[in-house]
This record gives sequence, C-alpha cells and structure tokens, in this order.
Amino acid sequence: MLKPSKRSINLPQAATRKLSKFADAAKKAGKKVYHLNIGQPDVDSPEQVLQALTKYDQKYIPYTASQGNLSYREKLLKYYRKHNIDITAEEILVTASGSEALFFALSVACDLDDEIIVPEPFYTNYSTIAGIAGVNIIPVTAKFEESFALPPIESFSEKITDKTKAILICNPSNPTGYVYSEKELLELKELCIKHNLFLISDEVYREFNYSETEIISALNISGMEDRTIVVDSVSKRYNTCGLRIGAFITRNQDVITSTLKYAQARLSPPTLGQFVAEEAIETPDSYFDEVTEKFIGRRDLLVERINNIPGAKCNKPEGAFYLLAKLPVDNAENFCKWLLTDFDDNQETIMFAPAEGFYKTPGLGVNEVRIAYVLNRKDLNRAMDILEKALATYPGKE
Amino acid sequence: MLKPSKRSINLPQAATRKLSKFADAAKKAGKKVYHLNIGQPDVDSPEQVLQALTKYDQKYIPYTASQGNLSYREKLLKYYRKHNIDITAEEILVTASGSEALFFALSVACDLDDEIIVPEPFYTNYSTIAGIAGVNIIPVTAKFEESFALPPIESFSEKITDKTKAILICNPSNPTGYVYSEKELLELKELCIKHNLFLISDEVYREFNYSETEIISALNISGMEDRTIVVDSVSKRYNTCGLRIGAFITRNQDVITSTLKYAQARLSPPTLGQFVAEEAIETPDSYFDEVTEKFIGRRDLLVERINNIPGAKCNKPEGAFYLLAKLPVDNAENFCKWLLTDFDDNQETIMFAPAEGFYKTPGLGVNEVRIAYVLNRKDLNRAMDILEKALATYPGKE
Repeated sequence: MLKPSKRSINLPQAATRKLSKFADAAKKAGKKVYHLNIGQPDVDSPEQVLQALTKYDQKYIPYTASQGNLSYREKLLKYYRKHNIDITAEEILVTASGSEALFFALSVACDLDDEIIVPEPFYTNYSTIAGIAGVNIIPVTAKFEESFALPPIESFSEKITDKTKAILICNPSNPTGYVYSEKELLELKELCIKHNLFLISDEVYREFNYSETEIISALNISGMEDRTIVVDSVSKRYNTCGLRIGAFITRNQDVITSTLKYAQARLSPPTLGQFVAEEAIETPDSYFDEVTEKFIGRRDLLVERINNIPGAKCNKPEGAFYLLAKLPVDNAENFCKWLLTDFDDNQETIMFAPAEGFYKTPGLGVNEVRIAYVLNRKDLNRAMDILEKALATYPGKE
Repeated sequence: MLKPSKRSINLPQAATRKLSKFADAAKKAGKKVYHLNIGQPDVDSPEQVLQALTKYDQKYIPYTASQGNLSYREKLLKYYRKHNIDITAEEILVTASGSEALFFALSVACDLDDEIIVPEPFYTNYSTIAGIAGVNIIPVTAKFEESFALPPIESFSEKITDKTKAILICNPSNPTGYVYSEKELLELKELCIKHNLFLISDEVYREFNYSETEIISALNISGMEDRTIVVDSVSKRYNTCGLRIGAFITRNQDVITSTLKYAQARLSPPTLGQFVAEEAIETPDSYFDEVTEKFIGRRDLLVERINNIPGAKCNKPEGAFYLLAKLPVDNAENFCKWLLTDFDDNQETIMFAPAEGFYKTPGLGVNEVRIAYVLNRKDLNRAMDILEKALATYPGKE
C-alpha cells in the first residue's frame, strides 16, 4: 500500500476527533449523548438568514470575485461600524470560513518553520492549521487560577526568537471564554511594535459578550494598522456554521495583495454563503439581545452546578460559549472516553472535549474538560445530573 | 510597513489575474468586453439545482461531518455508478471545491519540497496550489502539433528523482481540451507502479466529452487502487462554480485517514452547497445531452473561425470547453493587454487568457491564447469578428 506523506501522517488531530468513534458506538448501542463537546449551538438562525435562501434568483451559481462579492464587502462595513470598527471594503477579503482566514493569516505572516506565540489553552485546530501552514506554535501558559487572563508579557518576550513573526489571540477565547482588557491589548501592542510582529486576532465570538463593555477589536488598537490581522466568521454570529463564510481583515495593503493570491488559488468563497450572509446583516439587535440573554442564563447555570460538585470547579467566563472545568479525575480524556464506553444513566450520557488537547505544553489540562454550553437549560441541568452521577462511580476519581 | 512573508510575496499568480485590472478599466471606459478568458459558462443550472434552495427547511445552518454529509456521499455513488465508477462512501471526502481537493492531494502525496510531474500546458492555479502546499511542479511538454496528447512516457521517466511522488493529469484537460486514451492511461499506470508514484487525476470536466467514448476515469485503471487519487467538483457539471463543492476520491484508506485531518482542520465543507449538490444528482440525462450539443456547436464554430484567420490555428479538442489557439502575434500577453487598453471595434473588445501562464518551461506558449467557449454562438461569432479586426491592426503582428 502506497503510504501518505510523513507530514500528513504526523499532522495533529483534536482529541475530540479521536473520541467521536466512541460517541458513534454509544449512539448505535442506543444511548442518548448530550453533546457539550462542540461549538454548534441549538439556537435558530435569524429570520433574515432563513428567508435569504428563497430570494436567490440567478439562473446559475457563478463564482464571485476571489476577495468576495463587492456588494457583500460593502454591506459588511455597516456591520463593523455597528461594532465601532471603521474599515474599508479594500481591507476585507471574504474567506471560506474563519479557518481559511487563519490559514491565510499564518501563511502571509510566516515563512516555513517560523514561529507564532499563542496563549494556551487555545483552540485545538490552531495546531492543525499551523501544521498545514508549516508554522510552529510556541505556547505561553494562561492560568486557570487567573481566569485565563493574558499571561505576563515577559512570558511572551522570553519566547521571542528570530523566527517569531506573530502573536495569535482568540478574543473572546475559545476554549476559556476569557475577554481581553484594553490594558492587556496595549501590552500586546507594545510587544508587537518592539519585536516587529503581527498581531492575529481571532474574533469570531464577538457577539457572545456577557461583560458590561464592548469587546475591543484588535483593529481598534491605534498604531497597529500595519500589524493587525483580524480573523472573523459568520458561523457563530447567526448560528450559520455551515455557510463557511469568514473574513480576513487588515489595513496593511501589502498583506492584502499577497493574501489575495491565496484567495485566487481557490477562486471564490461560497456564493450562496455570501448571499445569505449579506442578507443576514439586516438582523435586528433584538436577535442578538435574546441570544445573549439565553447564553448568560446557561453560563450562570453551568457555573453554579459545576462549582457545587465536590472537587470540581470553573471560572465565570465573560464571552464565547465555552468554559474550562477542573474535574476530580485522574485523566479527563480517559474519563470522557469512559463516559461514552462504560457509563450511562438511564441510557443517557454526556460528551465533553478533554482539555489536554487545548494545551501545547505536555502535562497541562490533564484534569480539565471544555464544556460548550450549547444546549437548553433543561438539557444542561440533565447533563450536570449525569456528570454528578458519573463522578460518583468513576473508578479513576481523584 | 510590516512586510508579508517571502513565500506569500513569491507565490505565483495567473497572468489573467494581472490582466483583470485592464479589463475593469476598459469596462469603466464604456467598452463591452467579451470574456473568453474564464471557465464560467453562460448555461443555466438544472432545475434540480434552482429548486433545491427553496427546499432547505432546517432552522439553522450547521456544520456537516468534515468528510461531507453521509447522505450526500451515498447519493454520489449513484452519480459515479452512472459513469461506471464503482466506489464506496468511505472512499469519498467531500471538499470545499476541486481546488481544495487538489491541495489535499498534493499535501497527502508529497512532503515539503517533493516533486510532481505535470504535462504542460496545465491549469495555472496548479502552480499556485502547489506553491501553497510546498510542492515543486516538474513539467513535461505536450505538443500543439500533436493536439497536446500525452508526451512520450520517456519524457516522464527522465524527470523522475527521489523527490518525485506523483503524476498529475487533468482529463479532459484544461487548458487544451485533450482527452486521454486508454493506451496513454496504461502507460501512466506502468510508470507509477515502476517508480512507486501516486496518480492524481483532475476529472472536473468529465461531462464535457465530445468524443464517441466515455472519459476513462483514473479510478478505473485496475491495479492502481492504492495509487489513484481523483479530484472532482460539481462546479462545471451543473454550472454551479459558486457552490464550492468538490470531492477527493481514493481507494487507499491510509490516504483517506491522513487527508481527513486536513478536512477536520477546516471543520466542514459548505452545508448549503452539499444540500444543493445532493438534489442535483437527480438531474436528467437530457440536461447533459443539451449542454453537450451546445458546446459541440460552439467548439466547431470556434475551430472553423480560428483556422480561417490567416496565421492563426488551433486543434479540435474532444473535451472541456477550452482550446489553445496560436495567433500571429509576437507576444500573446501583450496582445491580450492591448485588446483591453488600446483596441475596440464599436466600443467592443475581447479578453483571452495568455497561454504562457499555462506553461512552466520559459518561452513556451508565447504566441498562444486559451479561449474558453463559454458564450453563445452569436457572441462567439462577434468575438471572432473582433479578433480578425484586431489582428489586422495590431502593431506587434508577426
């Protein structure tokens, strides 16, 4: 049998992916699985999205411009202005997902074997996308005890080498839910200017903000116009993960020019996705208000339930719809697998994402799981009941 | 200004992309431009496609499985069986376009700096996609005088090194329209087995077949089960270039396992695109019969008109909807630019793709253009009238 390339065999894979076959087996065996492992919420998309599909009236489905439809990019300015972000259509490349935007950002910021510094825990797919782009992630550790705030800026400085080309943050953060303060962003600014680095800011959870103040976009750090690249996506905003429409935004026109070549290589972002996303910009504020209220309620419920479980604890995140919980188990990956293979309560069980995969430093996050609060309150309560019962019988309890 | 990475600055870009700003300027100046430079036909999509959009009834637009919806992959088997290709759903990864499928194929077949051999002229984006994947394209030259048939197999053998990992063909070929014979494919088989290579076959123009016999898929070369990777797409098939739905197909399960990690890194192919493409599989044969008849008529018209222009000539291709024409000009890229910047007939002009960009060997294709016969007969006739008049006054005529 002819073998695949070494780089493809060695490409990292998220731990949840390895667990998914056990989840499939559990379902085949008749178990109900509460999925708290993935960022796919249960809320309806806004009416503007659902009605858009009936409005498409072209007789075929052509390519759009590689940088995205001009009409969509111009309409996006209205969306960004609402969030106090002042950009032009020439500063936006529409991408086929936030993942693609991140791949573009890493490729345009880094040559092969260059390095980016990323606060850990971070979204596992960053490792895979960096692997595909031939870029090395150097982690700096954010601490559970500090709600995963930005690590001290010296911990970044000491990791910087000739190969360091960018800092990558996720704000609000997947998997921690942490929202960066203005002070933290200004520390990053000083660091990037001092060491001539790009700041890549993944802001796909912008709408999921439970704090009193607006999320500060990296595009609004003045003096960083040629350094900031924002990765964005409509996936979470309208619960349209399947549209595969994201955005790559920078005011550095040399970066736009180079990135456009990557965009041209794949010709066009999805046409239907852009069509729907353009209509979605008319979504009223009331939609987001309702979603936010719902997620605040879910977060509060989970935080309370988890901290009431003996030996378990979690912080109260201010954004996104994830939290990291420490559980009284020897190994969270084993526990997550055991939940699917060996445990059930009334033929029901739960699935989390083991947090070890969100850390690059070996040995960290071993007793943590990421919980996505993407189910309704009744299901979340039931999932927490199951968790309590499971922990009471789990043989690897610590 | 912080500079982009060297690799992004050096990434090759198709010549037509460089010309597009001149086309935009011509249109702004009030000229009508007949676009024979891109593969975006003017035919309507089948009814099954246009009606599919009104049938979507989920309340949100979720991710699908990274390898594509199972229901779509199972339905695809019906499509492939119609073309006498016998595969299973586990041998298909649904991709976000043929371009993505090719990127996956190059990444899974080759490590960094490995080589693939490709008959030239070839689709320009192959160079960009190979550049992104860190793979070097080694060309072997197919000859205009031989209708761009497969070059002698010795011309492949002599280019093989330790770094050679695959042969890449496009069948039917963009840009030549050539359709490979069984004899040629069996020569490639022998070569691949002897030198332990993958055969990557881009078959996105399968439906555009004007020969008497079925296009032979690389999947039907027996004894090549672990070596063949087919790149496919629904873009041309249903004139749905904007759906961004392709396929990566191989019977080598190790290759599927490794490639799935690339697919997981970008989470999901477009959900709406898969939904539409699944409905499209019910497109009746009569749709393809009509399209084929239309394109045969266009091809015949173009071949006759071009060969009647003094100093111009072209072959009669048997597939796709492109042909390469030699023109009596010193430099086709200059001529194509001149058509947009300096020439008009009654405020109308034409745009072709200069063929030099389809050759990797410097100096080849300098007096050739690729013509996409994607317009109706009236427009094609008018475009050829314009070409005749332009050649009569072009200062760089040879």
